[in-house]
Amino acid sequence: MHSHEHSAVSVIGPRPHHDGSALFVSEQSPAPGSTVKIRVRIPGDFGPVGAVRLRSTPDREPFFLLATRLGVVDGWEWWEADLALPNPVNGYRFLVTRGDGSFAWLNARGLSAIDVPDIDDFRIATFDAPPDWADSTVMYQIFPDRFARSAEADKRELPSWAQAAEWGDEPIHVGPVTPFQFYGGDLAGIVDHLDHLERLGVTLIYLTPVFPARSNHRYDAFSFSEVDPLLGGNAALIALVEAAHERGFKIIGDLTSNHSGDAHEWFTASYGNPAAPESDFYHWLNDEQTEYEAWLGVPSLPKFNWNSAELRRRFIEGPGSVVARWLEPPYNLDGWRIDVANMTGRFEDQDLNEEVRRIIRKTMIDVNPSTILLAEATNDAASDFTGDAWHGAMTYANLTRPLWSWLSEPGRIAQFFGIPYGVIPSYTGAEVYEAYTAFSAQFPWRVRMNNMNALDTHDTPRFRTHARPDAVPVAFGITLTMPGIPLIFAGDEFGHIGDDGEHSRTTIPWGEAEQTTSAIDEYAELIRLRRDNVALNAGGLRWVHVDDDALAYVREHQDQCVLVVAARSATTVHLPVGTIPGGAPILYGSATCDGDAVSAAGMSLTVWELPGVVAPAPSSGSAVPK
Amino acid sequence: MHSHEHSAVSVIGPRPHHDGSALFVSEQSPAPGSTVKIRVRIPGDFGPVGAVRLRSTPDREPFFLLATRLGVVDGWEWWEADLALPNPVNGYRFLVTRGDGSFAWLNARGLSAIDVPDIDDFRIATFDAPPDWADSTVMYQIFPDRFARSAEADKRELPSWAQAAEWGDEPIHVGPVTPFQFYGGDLAGIVDHLDHLERLGVTLIYLTPVFPARSNHRYDAFSFSEVDPLLGGNAALIALVEAAHERGFKIIGDLTSNHSGDAHEWFTASYGNPAAPESDFYHWLNDEQTEYEAWLGVPSLPKFNWNSAELRRRFIEGPGSVVARWLEPPYNLDGWRIDVANMTGRFEDQDLNEEVRRIIRKTMIDVNPSTILLAEATNDAASDFTGDAWHGAMTYANLTRPLWSWLSEPGRIAQFFGIPYGVIPSYTGAEVYEAYTAFSAQFPWRVRMNNMNALDTHDTPRFRTHARPDAVPVAFGITLTMPGIPLIFAGDEFGHIGDDGEHSRTTIPWGEAEQTTSAIDEYAELIRLRRDNVALNAGGLRWVHVDDDALAYVREHQDQCVLVVAARSATTVHLPVGTIPGGAPILYGSATCDGDAVSAAGMSLTVWELPGVVAPAPSSGSAVPK
Repeated sequence: MHSHEHSAVSVIGPRPHHDGSALFVSEQSPAPGSTVKIRVRIPGDFGPVGAVRLRSTPDREPFFLLATRLGVVDGWEWWEADLALPNPVNGYRFLVTRGDGSFAWLNARGLSAIDVPDIDDFRIATFDAPPDWADSTVMYQIFPDRFARSAEADKRELPSWAQAAEWGDEPIHVGPVTPFQFYGGDLAGIVDHLDHLERLGVTLIYLTPVFPARSNHRYDAFSFSEVDPLLGGNAALIALVEAAHERGFKIIGDLTSNHSGDAHEWFTASYGNPAAPESDFYHWLNDEQTEYEAWLGVPSLPKFNWNSAELRRRFIEGPGSVVARWLEPPYNLDGWRIDVANMTGRFEDQDLNEEVRRIIRKTMIDVNPSTILLAEATNDAASDFTGDAWHGAMTYANLTRPLWSWLSEPGRIAQFFGIPYGVIPSYTGAEVYEAYTAFSAQFPWRVRMNNMNALDTHDTPRFRTHARPDAVPVAFGITLTMPGIPLIFAGDEFGHIGDDGEHSRTTIPWGEAEQTTSAIDEYAELIRLRRDNVALNAGGLRWVHVDDDALAYVREHQDQCVLVVAARSATTVHLPVGTIPGGAPILYGSATCDGDAVSAAGMSLTVWELPGVVAPAPSSGSAVPK
Repeated sequence: MHSHEHSAVSVIGPRPHHDGSALFVSEQSPAPGSTVKIRVRIPGDFGPVGAVRLRSTPDREPFFLLATRLGVVDGWEWWEADLALPNPVNGYRFLVTRGDGSFAWLNARGLSAIDVPDIDDFRIATFDAPPDWADSTVMYQIFPDRFARSAEADKRELPSWAQAAEWGDEPIHVGPVTPFQFYGGDLAGIVDHLDHLERLGVTLIYLTPVFPARSNHRYDAFSFSEVDPLLGGNAALIALVEAAHERGFKIIGDLTSNHSGDAHEWFTASYGNPAAPESDFYHWLNDEQTEYEAWLGVPSLPKFNWNSAELRRRFIEGPGSVVARWLEPPYNLDGWRIDVANMTGRFEDQDLNEEVRRIIRKTMIDVNPSTILLAEATNDAASDFTGDAWHGAMTYANLTRPLWSWLSEPGRIAQFFGIPYGVIPSYTGAEVYEAYTAFSAQFPWRVRMNNMNALDTHDTPRFRTHARPDAVPVAFGITLTMPGIPLIFAGDEFGHIGDDGEHSRTTIPWGEAEQTTSAIDEYAELIRLRRDNVALNAGGLRWVHVDDDALAYVREHQDQCVLVVAARSATTVHLPVGTIPGGAPILYGSATCDGDAVSAAGMSLTVWELPGVVAPAPSSGSAVPK
């Protein structure tokens, strides 16, 4: 353990910086075949720079251009070069040569004195851009069965599979009853509580599945043609979306593109019936069509066969498809979250994933280009998130797991996002930085801006369950101040805990909400911080201090910068020139500043507003090869 | 600089080991959908192990299996698990939990205390295997114009573009004359000197292009229908292949799948002629077909458009194609080296690379599955080398550049494999290890076994030009003792130097060969070392000591192990238990051994033969999920 007062050395030294934000890339949604201006910024204490080269790899062949030195502003030397974008995904990196002839490579992993593989190059994609509202959105996840019961809920008859639970009962999270325990939350219940969402300040509602199924989670849909009558049916969805839109919320649904339920109308039609039009929708393992491939071998979740043109037509392709229908009037959903996106279209020697996801996005664009497409890929997600279709990853690898490993009580026995460690691993701040950087580097910047920043979801334990004292606002604040779309799983703001995904599917204690006012207000304050500051929505990301117990970074934008210092114990960190808050306004928290030293009294998050970055004027010169 | 006698600490500690060799993977050419046994070996000084899990990612979803502890042999604890291979490329890694609950991931980059991206997982591919002769082959590169002139060469009339040079003239390596300087080496000249190749001990001849062109390098072919008459025509190739085969050599040609010359019959037929059958063979940029995409914008090298079915049919697909024809009687080439493979089929938003390379390999397999397919990708090559088609990469990133950076004179101004550093970068041994590992990790093991280990080629300066004193046999010995196919560029064994690719295309001084007998014999001795020791051809690779000035690794096999210690200065290294040579036979070099300490007197390479690895019997138990 660490002493209560110490001053630690950062693993981040003075170094050149580039990221995909507008300070460094002249066009955030460049057209295919266009050319953008790329900038890199080098601090004075890095040492004299002899030359900067931009390396791109058009058609995979390395190509170098000498960058132009634009001049020095506020102690930073700026360089600029043209980057042609001939390919859909264009990698690039910098070669910085110092005055003494030594050199360093700069890529999305940071600085390296030796050559490094292409996989971590910065990337710019030229596919269609995500919707412009995505950057500033804050997402709120609702698991319909557990969020709120409307007055109508009492009138509904339960299906045979359901086992009624009392609102407020602790979810049964092991054993055969787990998927059938039914609390009866519905869509009208959500409408009843939109005030709560407004108070929180979230802007995007993410509903887990609303199609009829034979479980409380509804990931085993038996139809995509109607909304589950137990949730209020189609009319309730229309009413919810209308009410949400009236208040300025966006709202998205959840689709299972990897599998359906075994009660699905397509599956029951084709099971044992090779003559059915839906016969090629699944991967049958025998001629009689009674054995079939299923998600992780779970027989209730038969896997889709995306070779089927008819499946594509009905489900994902074109105006009549499921994907299109619910985005159109009168339903008007604002996009989709795709379940098990990583496995979708992958089976043995076939990999139709890219094809399927591009069809989904194309269909969405044709209906409404201002929709968002997020996709579950809980582990390392980068390889499928090229910017072509999925706008952002619902992944735990880049931020969620590292934050847990930094801010959970050491040694806690817990489920850990599918990794059988047994305990929650303990990371130093340097390891958080390293893991975050490693698992983020391979995404184009634009995708990183839409990746999910979650502490937990309906599939995980709740963060608070194992958090160190006072760690929740620190961790939550980090999710709001890092690039990406913050996600609150409903219940977190009420201080809920949960040992695993099923256990975390707690009901919201609406009657007792007064008791947790301060927690809700704390959530709301941090969400407001995110929404109100352009640097947090559109700024770059530069780490300025990393040690065992402290993380500090700036989100940089031309109009403002935001400095974040997170500490898990009492500590003093020394910040580099240009990011020292001095008398700058504190937006959140209470760390103190003396010279270049920022001191935190303990577990804390402090956020300052700094002036915007002043960048030099563009160069007029033309590029010089090599 | 370093003192003359020191004992350095290795950056490699005791750690679990796995690689793709037969000691650790039960089937080297597994069938699609099959299951193999995977082993990992943990040294006693790693500390007590609680559990070992094998993580695979079928359809990209992480899946864990508990490994079975097989027992302890020679101080190593062995664990084993079944790995199903449902996909064409199957990634896997290990999670090792220590007795104290701490854990470590083991992937192809080594050991990590924190979770790491999937990209560096070990990989097993289930595509068709490379030819069984590849592992033990030693490749010799011949640039026909510069290797040897037969008696017939004098009788040939030079084409108009050629500027005759005297054999032995220093190549003109800058200016417009460079590609036209013509020395007149021919294929019969190679036949005349097969004795030399036998003496060297090489087993695979790689000929740069032999098709007619308008340059000395012939990468601008104007036909693939006949061998250049300046080289002796088709008959000369038949005679050469026959003579080579008689002596047991394999021999491969060189194809440009990215582009042809602008004098190519296909190009001249379609240039300005949209009605030509070859009209869709190239990427025309205007309707008149007078502007076109070319390799790096060089107009003499128009880029192929692989969308063309007719181009595929003529060039790469099926028995009548160029690819097939020269592998069939009477020509019987043993495979192809593909030029600019990385750019092939890539243009703007199109990427037909995978498709093209798979067609090429399919065609070759149909003609003769015992052929080899090597492909140029001079930089980071891994992403295209999945094991599906290209058997090995002609790349400089993994071994060539790191070796240059360790063993060249510091600060030398030189061309460096396309990277405009200005000088050759200086690496420590630890950086060599790090770069080698980073640029090798993403290849399946089987591809690594076929990657090119070269000190130089016709496209680079010669290694000797900038080498530290006595470094040549050390560097050459490393290329022969590492996994991969060693490559000697003809002339290296005569002590040639060259400042760049063009300058390195020196003629062989046959008359003066006596003068360099000792250099040739030194090359031959190291080549024999490679060929005679099964561990160097089929063994695994385990690094045992890495510091600034020394690299030590073992190639491990059940029948023998080979220990290699390379030093660039006088040094003493301490080897871990199990790899201490003691009184083991020295196969090459003269370092001394005292206890666990191996002392090198200076720049040197020493190779010992150690006993084979004794592995425990397979387990009979079945696998346990998680």
